[in-house]
Amino acid sequence: MPHCPVFIVSDRSGLTAETLSHTLMSQFPDVRFHQRALPFVDTPQKVQQAVRAIDEAGRESGCRPLVFATFVDESFSEILSAAEGEIFDLFSPFIGRMERLLDQQSSHKPGQSHGISDVGRYYRRIDAVNYAMHCDDGLHTQDYNRATLILLGASRSGKTPTCLYLALHFGFYAANYPLTEEDFGTGVLPGPLEPHKDRIFGLTIDPMRLHQIRTERRPGSEYASVARCRQDVVRAEQMFRRNGIPFCDSTNYSVEELGSTIKHQMGLVSSLY
Amino acid sequence: MPHCPVFIVSDRSGLTAETLSHTLMSQFPDVRFHQRALPFVDTPQKVQQAVRAIDEAGRESGCRPLVFATFVDESFSEILSAAEGEIFDLFSPFIGRMERLLDQQSSHKPGQSHGISDVGRYYRRIDAVNYAMHCDDGLHTQDYNRATLILLGASRSGKTPTCLYLALHFGFYAANYPLTEEDFGTGVLPGPLEPHKDRIFGLTIDPMRLHQIRTERRPGSEYASVARCRQDVVRAEQMFRRNGIPFCDSTNYSVEELGSTIKHQMGLVSSLY
Repeated sequence: MPHCPVFIVSDRSGLTAETLSHTLMSQFPDVRFHQRALPFVDTPQKVQQAVRAIDEAGRESGCRPLVFATFVDESFSEILSAAEGEIFDLFSPFIGRMERLLDQQSSHKPGQSHGISDVGRYYRRIDAVNYAMHCDDGLHTQDYNRATLILLGASRSGKTPTCLYLALHFGFYAANYPLTEEDFGTGVLPGPLEPHKDRIFGLTIDPMRLHQIRTERRPGSEYASVARCRQDVVRAEQMFRRNGIPFCDSTNYSVEELGSTIKHQMGLVSSLY
Repeated sequence: MPHCPVFIVSDRSGLTAETLSHTLMSQFPDVRFHQRALPFVDTPQKVQQAVRAIDEAGRESGCRPLVFATFVDESFSEILSAAEGEIFDLFSPFIGRMERLLDQQSSHKPGQSHGISDVGRYYRRIDAVNYAMHCDDGLHTQDYNRATLILLGASRSGKTPTCLYLALHFGFYAANYPLTEEDFGTGVLPGPLEPHKDRIFGLTIDPMRLHQIRTERRPGSEYASVARCRQDVVRAEQMFRRNGIPFCDSTNYSVEELGSTIKHQMGLVSSLY
């Protein structure tokens, strides 16, 4: 079966089209898609170039290309409709209904969503990313008063990528603290965490997965051994339960799913929206 | 004008619904939306709870709620349709057409897009995030052979958040190297970069914005002065031009837009899709 050509065309970054089209494509696991992103298609000339690229891909592959488009300028949609592809306009089925319901015209301005439409807001988000870097892996605990949340868990349970995602995507000030041998010994919450107990969320992980991950980092070490991984996970979960800390299992969850879960369970509201 | 209640309802993380609905809402800058995300609504009982929450918000606000939904289980959509809200089903207008065009049934399985549907792929992405942390700010240049790209620019020109975004979103191994006084002195590419010239991308920034950003970090310092910022920017751009390094201006671009621009200009293809 030949690859089905897919085009993602937008007058801005194309991220919205990318996100929705990937979700749609993922519902057809047996189809092999060959995807091309055409972002910043923001002049009639560039739209015509896109039309030519789509037609060429269709001829070469022998398959009708799927075209996912997000144009806020409707005249671009019209030019694009000349292409020999199946065009999925991801905005128009919804914008019209919203206009009627809200009794408002839409602004038809591109880049309102993924761009810097609000400078203050955008820089809060970047500041949150810097904070997540600054407070990674138990560093700078004296700055925990600024934390939206603090992720707690054994080494390599998924804390760092989750914190970076929470900062980048939601603008949360996300710190993380690794539980070590020392912390486990006492059984009580590590000192720097005690004053911030209500903002802690725990991550746990399947011990065998943890063993795999640690083995890639330090093959054959005691740190990566199954026994040690099992012990670390049991002790981390004990600490969560004893201190009433909500937690979830990162084994089968992506950072996106972990982020949504944590946000939802902690009742966090992003200041970005 | 009262806030218009908005619900984002999904049987998984709801990220696709979130992305598209934010883009749509951003087209109505004069409307005040009050948004609630209801992720992981994956049982009929939870859908009924969502219906009640929507109806309550409608009564309280006096406005008909907007409901953006992504259910892959169609029976959930049916239950949701009982809600007194304007329901925007973000999947069904597209899935049916794709099924006909591809001559395939969709899988109707949730979590194919933002979840860990392919473990190897997911861990490559997490590995890319770890790499971006490892090679941040000129660290570990001996590992540049693994880099998909290396961002180059003056201190605080936006390299770190852009690298983290490129790693998290596309799985690119993105390193970054700050240009310092020392590098500017010689006028040639810093030694560790020379062998990787074809994978370097430059970031520049408006000197006054750079001054603002550096002032927040080190108020009143020579480092943050307008003169120094102007000089650093001029010299960085000179270095890019002299060495034929493509670059773009980060001043008015978000990390998402920078990411799309860099990916597009460098012709990078994400191995995640």
